[in-house]
Amino acid sequence: MLSVSNRTAQLEGSPIRRLAPLAVAAKKAGKTVYHLNIGQPDIPTPRSFMDGVKDAPIDVLSYSPSRGIAETREAFVRYYASFGIDLDPEELSVTIGGSEGFTFAIQTACNPGDEILIPEPFYPNYKGQALVHGVKVVPITTRIEDGFHLPPIEGIERLITDRTRAILFSNPANPTGVAYRREELEGLAKLATEHDLFVISDEPYRELTYDGEAVSILSLPELREHAILVDSISKRISACGARLGCIASRNKDVISAIDKLSQIRLSPPTFSQYGLIAFLRDPGYKETIGRMVAKFRSRRDTLFDALGTIPGAVLRKPEGAFYIFVKFTQIDDSEAFARFMLTDFDMDGETVMVAPGAGFYATEGKGSNEVRLAYVLEEEKLIRAVSVLRAGLEAYVNRRAEATVEIR
Amino acid sequence: MLSVSNRTAQLEGSPIRRLAPLAVAAKKAGKTVYHLNIGQPDIPTPRSFMDGVKDAPIDVLSYSPSRGIAETREAFVRYYASFGIDLDPEELSVTIGGSEGFTFAIQTACNPGDEILIPEPFYPNYKGQALVHGVKVVPITTRIEDGFHLPPIEGIERLITDRTRAILFSNPANPTGVAYRREELEGLAKLATEHDLFVISDEPYRELTYDGEAVSILSLPELREHAILVDSISKRISACGARLGCIASRNKDVISAIDKLSQIRLSPPTFSQYGLIAFLRDPGYKETIGRMVAKFRSRRDTLFDALGTIPGAVLRKPEGAFYIFVKFTQIDDSEAFARFMLTDFDMDGETVMVAPGAGFYATEGKGSNEVRLAYVLEEEKLIRAVSVLRAGLEAYVNRRAEATVEIR
Repeated sequence: MLSVSNRTAQLEGSPIRRLAPLAVAAKKAGKTVYHLNIGQPDIPTPRSFMDGVKDAPIDVLSYSPSRGIAETREAFVRYYASFGIDLDPEELSVTIGGSEGFTFAIQTACNPGDEILIPEPFYPNYKGQALVHGVKVVPITTRIEDGFHLPPIEGIERLITDRTRAILFSNPANPTGVAYRREELEGLAKLATEHDLFVISDEPYRELTYDGEAVSILSLPELREHAILVDSISKRISACGARLGCIASRNKDVISAIDKLSQIRLSPPTFSQYGLIAFLRDPGYKETIGRMVAKFRSRRDTLFDALGTIPGAVLRKPEGAFYIFVKFTQIDDSEAFARFMLTDFDMDGETVMVAPGAGFYATEGKGSNEVRLAYVLEEEKLIRAVSVLRAGLEAYVNRRAEATVEIR
Repeated sequence: MLSVSNRTAQLEGSPIRRLAPLAVAAKKAGKTVYHLNIGQPDIPTPRSFMDGVKDAPIDVLSYSPSRGIAETREAFVRYYASFGIDLDPEELSVTIGGSEGFTFAIQTACNPGDEILIPEPFYPNYKGQALVHGVKVVPITTRIEDGFHLPPIEGIERLITDRTRAILFSNPANPTGVAYRREELEGLAKLATEHDLFVISDEPYRELTYDGEAVSILSLPELREHAILVDSISKRISACGARLGCIASRNKDVISAIDKLSQIRLSPPTFSQYGLIAFLRDPGYKETIGRMVAKFRSRRDTLFDALGTIPGAVLRKPEGAFYIFVKFTQIDDSEAFARFMLTDFDMDGETVMVAPGAGFYATEGKGSNEVRLAYVLEEEKLIRAVSVLRAGLEAYVNRRAEATVEIR
């Protein structure tokens, strides 16, 4: 029988995609929808980047070198140097966004049947790419009550088998906003060196760290051979559609593998590279990023404080990124709640879209009373959105209580 | 022990990459190198495309929808309609070049351990992606003496096992320039429907067909459920660096699988999509492509005629693309010959770089006296390059004869 591969048949569509048509319908019906579900900045892309694209010296739009234009790689190297990270352009390849970066990392670290440890809740596309590549995700479960910091290292060590090849995480993290402390990473580093594991760190939110520090995996000398850095310009300069990032490692075998993987997909997009080169050539680029970070920090505080007024909400103040992962103890199926908000609720014509928590877990049943909220809206809208959310939670609970009475 | 995956360790670097530093050294030493090895057009990218990029209405460079901007998909649909191919935008997804397209197709059709039939010589990245995804390439060997047309269908049928999931080819083909006749495709279609195989046709050279016709796989009604079209704008509008293509199928399960694969890599590049939308909105776009095709047709004839004057050369006139695959009966290791041309030979300070044939075969030992030559140079340069090549072949043969005498 003609049928698609198991690897694609088993891929789950995202809950957000299931909810999206409901949001469209709500808007068609005249409702205002506050999108707290979205994972991309709302801030205009810097002028210097856009000008770099428009002024790109291109007559024939040819393939760039498969590892990226030399100038792009050198610009990345200078950028890392500003964080005290010493890299050679030969240790770095330009990728088609962070997505291609962690795909390359999984392909390089794992064969089909291998296992990869990932702290959950995690970015769902890690699991998707692992599945496509025949790799089993073994979750390291973290708890909202711990601010999603890592559990004791002994517990993580017990998850390691002879098929474990790597530990993968984002730092600061999507969807939780946790920024791992240096001691946490050193704990993982000890495991990695003892058990011969790669440590794959996805760091697009580096600058978006408001408390503590964003510790790059490349700053741990003991991980010289083990560390694989995945990065992306999408979040820090609001350029998600550029599809541009990089992958770096000081392990020569890793770099050689990535070089070959890069060749078989030809090249990253050319225009975006000229945008990035121009942006990083602007002497004021750090200030441009800094202004964006200040805005997100203020939004984080505003959203956190507002959420704290919702009865039943359990949350910790996240150190970075632009998400807050919240538990609402009064609900038990956050996808049903998200649907309710779009189809059956409004407050003065307004409602809120949230990202259901279960999609961020590998462990069955986890996340069913949690949601991810992104703060990529202006603060007054965030405040308004939380009021709507609070009213929606009340209405949802009341309606369920009524339904229960009726069933009796 | 910490080590990279077998799937990446087994990937071969391309022979061109091995030769590239020698070409750089030759140029540094003052030689002119005619690059007959290159697989991308030398013709300026159309103005309308470039203007579409520069005038893109972008403030926040956000992710595009994972299947592409609605207008991009509609533009592709209108483009196919102009060839009499009826598609719905729901049957089509925008990809990051043809490379992502055939990667999606392999992921959709095959699990690890499955087999895929590919006529050889083939585009080497098919084999690379198959290897990364644990899929075995089973070559259908074709011969220069047949102009690389397919062998009798019975011979192909004998290659099918219970692990065979798909037949993959480019049409018109890189590296041979063959354009399959409708009867050939109908023969494959019969096999595919009888044995439940997907037929994946990679058609970036559609317009670059000079004799015969480019038969799109989507024009065979019997393959309604089996056909997967992979396409790219790279070659037909000289926009390789745009990284833009699409994948289309009328099989709902295939489209659903591709939709999920698209989600887990987020989106294709945004700027390039605006370039394509603008290009396809230009009422004169067919004429723009037509002028490019006329230029390549004339170059093909010029290169073919010139090569015919080289003693020992075996070749057939290719129907399409911009390559001629040639056998030189006087050599037995075309990579060694390619190296010789760059390091030990020049004619009045000029030399030629060729793509060795073996890299395009899966069968061990095949292609060792063949090379792929691309006609992406102006005609006077092509003529000059062939003179240099002829002299180089003579010098190579004489030197080897002398070396043999010495050894005696």
